[in-house]
Amino acid sequence: MSKKIHTAQTAPFRWENVPVLAYKEGGGTHFRGVTRQVLFDDGDPGGTQLRYFEIAPGGHSTLERHDHAHSVMILRGMGQALVGHEIHSLETNDLIRVPPQTWHQFRATTDEPLGFLCLVRSERDKPQHPTAGELAALRADGRIGSFVRV
Amino acid sequence: MSKKIHTAQTAPFRWENVPVLAYKEGGGTHFRGVTRQVLFDDGDPGGTQLRYFEIAPGGHSTLERHDHAHSVMILRGMGQALVGHEIHSLETNDLIRVPPQTWHQFRATTDEPLGFLCLVRSERDKPQHPTAGELAALRADGRIGSFVRV
Repeated sequence: MSKKIHTAQTAPFRWENVPVLAYKEGGGTHFRGVTRQVLFDDGDPGGTQLRYFEIAPGGHSTLERHDHAHSVMILRGMGQALVGHEIHSLETNDLIRVPPQTWHQFRATTDEPLGFLCLVRSERDKPQHPTAGELAALRADGRIGSFVRV
Repeated sequence: MSKKIHTAQTAPFRWENVPVLAYKEGGGTHFRGVTRQVLFDDGDPGGTQLRYFEIAPGGHSTLERHDHAHSVMILRGMGQALVGHEIHSLETNDLIRVPPQTWHQFRATTDEPLGFLCLVRSERDKPQHPTAGELAALRADGRIGSFVRV
């Protein structure tokens, strides 16, 4: 991100000198149509990062869990999120907390992108993907089975 | 703030069970028409809070500085901010960093409210107000003199 005082939006949800990055550094096939922009990073390992993610229509984030929590605010569009065992319908400006070690996945379910802020600790653990057994346990709930994409 | 997973927006920039608070707990006369809502607070003194502030048309935040930094994102309306010795014109979705010990003040300069997110460390120092001498030094720059409200 820029260390400037004022970083202007240059196009909808794109900012001056803020690169549009791959969602996951290593790539992968467990997500679809997701970009990442780091809006604020205080550079302190004990500090936080505020990122903006955007999921293209029909796309989804990775189904994952981890020790660190997410604080999410929807900024653009609508969508759905699995958090734990509930599927939430999300509208612009809604807030979502993802507690530690809770399975979660976001999906853009309309013909608009789903854009959201996600606040995390800078120093955080790597996401875990479900094992075959964990995935089968999640899918035992039919609503979750129809929702998740892996 | 709510500890729920999903906190819906119930009216524009108002959220379920998120109280609309006074801007400053002790009140004061050094600001005008400002409200505060705490959207996320991880409850950890080493953690962070994400707050939403809204300045009514014609209103302004306190002219102040402090050791802690602010990371700000405009969510609603337009306005202006003094940060250090520069006055920035702000539009929706613009980002603003307020570095430590930097005089700053936000103003709503149109007939719409100016709403913005402000990310801070939970444990932080109290704001300082300018002394008469500091205010005179700021006002020595005519543009700043016309801008600030105390």
